[in-house]
Amino acid sequence: MIIAVDGMGGDHAPGEIIKGVIESLAAFEDIDIHIYGDEQAMSPFLTDHERLKVIHCTERIEPDDEPVRAIRRKKDASMVRMAQAVKDGEAAACVSAGNTGALMAAGLFVVGRIDGIERPALAPTLPTVDGQGFVMLDLGANADAKPSQLGQYAVMGSIYAEKVRGIAKPRVGLLNIGTEEGKGNELTKAAYEVLYNEPVHFIGNVEARDLLTGVADVVVTDGFTGNMVLKSIEGTAQAFFTMLKEVYGSSLKSKLSAGLIKDELRGLKNKMDYTEYGGACLFGLNSPVIKAHGSSNANAILNAIRQARTMVQYDVCGTIRETVRKAETQ
Amino acid sequence: MIIAVDGMGGDHAPGEIIKGVIESLAAFEDIDIHIYGDEQAMSPFLTDHERLKVIHCTERIEPDDEPVRAIRRKKDASMVRMAQAVKDGEAAACVSAGNTGALMAAGLFVVGRIDGIERPALAPTLPTVDGQGFVMLDLGANADAKPSQLGQYAVMGSIYAEKVRGIAKPRVGLLNIGTEEGKGNELTKAAYEVLYNEPVHFIGNVEARDLLTGVADVVVTDGFTGNMVLKSIEGTAQAFFTMLKEVYGSSLKSKLSAGLIKDELRGLKNKMDYTEYGGACLFGLNSPVIKAHGSSNANAILNAIRQARTMVQYDVCGTIRETVRKAETQ
Repeated sequence: MIIAVDGMGGDHAPGEIIKGVIESLAAFEDIDIHIYGDEQAMSPFLTDHERLKVIHCTERIEPDDEPVRAIRRKKDASMVRMAQAVKDGEAAACVSAGNTGALMAAGLFVVGRIDGIERPALAPTLPTVDGQGFVMLDLGANADAKPSQLGQYAVMGSIYAEKVRGIAKPRVGLLNIGTEEGKGNELTKAAYEVLYNEPVHFIGNVEARDLLTGVADVVVTDGFTGNMVLKSIEGTAQAFFTMLKEVYGSSLKSKLSAGLIKDELRGLKNKMDYTEYGGACLFGLNSPVIKAHGSSNANAILNAIRQARTMVQYDVCGTIRETVRKAETQ
Repeated sequence: MIIAVDGMGGDHAPGEIIKGVIESLAAFEDIDIHIYGDEQAMSPFLTDHERLKVIHCTERIEPDDEPVRAIRRKKDASMVRMAQAVKDGEAAACVSAGNTGALMAAGLFVVGRIDGIERPALAPTLPTVDGQGFVMLDLGANADAKPSQLGQYAVMGSIYAEKVRGIAKPRVGLLNIGTEEGKGNELTKAAYEVLYNEPVHFIGNVEARDLLTGVADVVVTDGFTGNMVLKSIEGTAQAFFTMLKEVYGSSLKSKLSAGLIKDELRGLKNKMDYTEYGGACLFGLNSPVIKAHGSSNANAILNAIRQARTMVQYDVCGTIRETVRKAETQ
């Protein structure tokens, strides 16, 4: 299979992107990679590889570009050419660490939605204390949502969890402010009813407090709330590491303490690092579009490419297409 | 001043409640406390005190009671009698660690709203890395909100921060999914405009990721989102302490490491423990109504009573009343 990669997106592009690409080619013998970007900027980092093709692009999506306009105008931007390759069937999936809004616009307007999907959803895999992780969506593709859209998020997330994470009967939870039925705001009260009737293993409302303990395999919410929860988790984790550093740096005794468990602490940091899980997928599109974290290093890119490969192998998009089609004909 | 306390609400009632009450009477010579509850249940813990009055109540609000119905029917419940005392002017403020929904119903239907306040808001003080803390509202009084209500939350929170936390010009932020103006869902986009025109020091949108670093003194949001963010912070903090415990328990070397910095780690836990800041206030009512955390121990009750006292001293409710009245006559 061919995976298209945006060589110019992200804080550490193109160097770390290319490094991740090379590592992927070594890890997976069954993939070719087409990397899009400014050949001159990329060449210091490139090495020849029989399964690597370089496509020169003259434009680039900037972090502060207005997404939809940028995608429509900068037709020779690496991100747009990459998405176009997927649209044209030249590549089976694509990966970018660039401007999230622009990638979602590229997904929506270039790669295109599966027939019958109302809204695509951005779905990263988040960490859990036991290391298994869980999928949450929508994490920002659309700020507002309708109950029917949450129903579709549940179906897409469940298919992904089953095929890519190998969970036999993924537990799907509705993120809410209490576990009892009937709780929540207008959206979640209505969505509860919708989810109850979807072809998924719906376990009811789940609370934000329990997410990291693995209370569900798939968690469904609107983009605004999802983004809030993710940022809260990130901010709290960050504050903790900051405070831990202060504690450890505060005296000779504490520096000694830190030295003793350096490896374990790094293990903790890794567990909380959800780039280890491989980026966020934009569900509901015709082919896998993976958003790697903006600050992705080579390893994060490798994980994102790994995820794209797995999604193609297990034909997640095809299964979603089929499930939606069946639901519509019923 | 007289502060009314619910002796029967909370996981560790009445023992820890009474203990906290006794400690408050020792800490503050200018308060009397009227404690409401089952005299028989409370008597093992009570000691005579000239500034302590015990009022026997024959009923009690249970954790799973439907809030509004319970408040209306159980007229001799400690929580209802306590709120009625405030309504009747017998007490200047009240504190309860009991059923949150019921306390909010008691606040709304017994103590009553300030004229012109559309919706009361539940506002705890949350921790920041530097220990200063910030006020966030609404954290659950109402799941949905209108832009005008967020505007009132901003005004109430700002008055509180100024008078009780002693912040000269409290920075008020609108919790949103990005800092740029124009970001957000329908509610926050509209609320941005409203806040811009309120008599507060509005600093624009703030992100959940930055809350614990003290990006704002007052953070405004709807009850659903606020609850989500709070529970996410709590859950992440909990997960961290769980993982830290695992790290520290995993070997002799790590146990040694923990022993070296035991005090500093406890300090970290205290910093993140927002019961240290004194419970959540229900803003927008005629008198201060403080919701202490359900699991409050004596120290948490002391802090909640401390907060009630400060709010009365600085006449926070009176100032809110005056500010709303002025706004309406303009």
